[in-house]
Amino acid sequence: MSSKRLKILVIGGSGTIGSAVKENLLQRHDVVTAGTKSGDVQLDITDPESIRRAFEQLSPLDAVITTLGKATFAPFEELEAAPLESSQHRIGIENKLMGQINVAQCARDHLVDGGSITLTSGILNEHPVPGSVSPSMVNGALDAFVRAAAMEMPRGMRINIVSPSVLRESLGKYGPFFRGFKPVAAEDVALAYSRSVESLVNGQVLKVW
Amino acid sequence: MSSKRLKILVIGGSGTIGSAVKENLLQRHDVVTAGTKSGDVQLDITDPESIRRAFEQLSPLDAVITTLGKATFAPFEELEAAPLESSQHRIGIENKLMGQINVAQCARDHLVDGGSITLTSGILNEHPVPGSVSPSMVNGALDAFVRAAAMEMPRGMRINIVSPSVLRESLGKYGPFFRGFKPVAAEDVALAYSRSVESLVNGQVLKVW
Repeated sequence: MSSKRLKILVIGGSGTIGSAVKENLLQRHDVVTAGTKSGDVQLDITDPESIRRAFEQLSPLDAVITTLGKATFAPFEELEAAPLESSQHRIGIENKLMGQINVAQCARDHLVDGGSITLTSGILNEHPVPGSVSPSMVNGALDAFVRAAAMEMPRGMRINIVSPSVLRESLGKYGPFFRGFKPVAAEDVALAYSRSVESLVNGQVLKVW
Repeated sequence: MSSKRLKILVIGGSGTIGSAVKENLLQRHDVVTAGTKSGDVQLDITDPESIRRAFEQLSPLDAVITTLGKATFAPFEELEAAPLESSQHRIGIENKLMGQINVAQCARDHLVDGGSITLTSGILNEHPVPGSVSPSMVNGALDAFVRAAAMEMPRGMRINIVSPSVLRESLGKYGPFFRGFKPVAAEDVALAYSRSVESLVNGQVLKVW
C-alpha cells in the first residue's frame, strides 16, 4: 500500500491543519482540497447533498480527510436547556459532529475498496478546559463514532480520527482557552493523518499531544 | 453528607435501572420519580419547558438522576448522510443526548447548593457492538459532556455519569446485541448512582462492567 499513488480529498484543506496535511501528502499522492469557499471543489459539510455531489464528481477516491468543523465555546453557566433548534450546542452538533459523520457515511459508499476515512476531534474530549463543554461533547461523540463505525466498515475500508492538542499556529486565537497545554506543530499533527491513510490502523483515536 | 436525608428526583424511575436506583435510595432518602407517562410527576426530556416546570414544582431538590434515553440501533451501512432533521442519529441526539444535557443544564440552575446530577451513558462508548454506531456516539458525547461540565459546576455542585454494561434484566431485549458481554445486575448498577449522589466524586464516568 505504501508505494501506491493515492487520490486523497482533504475537506478543510486550506485551514491550518488541512494545509499541513496537504503539504505532507502531496509529496507522495494526488491531493484535492475542498472547502465552503476555498479549495479545488466547494462543499458544505452541513449540506449532505453538496458532499454527495463532490464525491460523485471526484470519483474514484482512495481516501478522504476532514480537518474542519465548528463548535461553540461558552461558559457552562450560559448554556441553557433549550430545544435543539435554539440550543447553543446546535452548531457543534450540526457542523463538527454531524458534518463529519455525514462525510464519513457518504465516503463509506463512494470510496474505492480498501479506502480510508480520517476525521478530526481534539484533546478536549479527555482534557476539557473552561468553556469547552460543547466542543468536548462533540469530540467525545466523534471518537466513539469512529470506534464503532470502524468495525462495520464494508469493502476493507478503514476509519480513524486524529485528536490534536492546541496548535502552535492557532495560539493567537485559542491560546487563552488552553493555558498549561503544550502546543503541537501543524506539521506533526499532519503525520497522524498520514499514518491513518498510509498505514493499516483502523478504529483508532490518533492523539497528538 | 452521608447522614443527611436528601430529596432526590429520578427521571426514568419506573424503568429497569430507575426502579433499582429508587429501591436503593429509598432506604435512606426521599425519592420522587418522573417519566413521560408514569412516575410521581410527568415530564418529557425532549421538552425543556416540561423539565423546568418539574424542577420548579419539586424545589428544593438535592439531587437529580436520569436513567432513560433513546438511541437508534441499526447496521452502520443503513445510516445515510442526511440533514439532522431526517438523520437516523436524530433520536439519539434529541433524546438520550440533548434530553439528559437539558436536564443537567436545568438542574444546575435549580438544585440546592452542593446538589448533584447523575446521568446515564453506557459501555458502548468504549466497547461498540454491531449496530451501535449511533448509541456509541451518544454515549461518548455524554461522557465527555460530564467531564467538561463538572469543572464549571457552580455552587459546589457535582455531576457524574453511570456507564453500565448490558443489564441481566434486559437480556431479552438487548442480549442479541451484546454477545460475549458479561451482564450486570440492576441492583449493582444502582450502587453507582448511590456513589455519585452520596459520595463526593465529581466529573467521573462510573463504569459498571
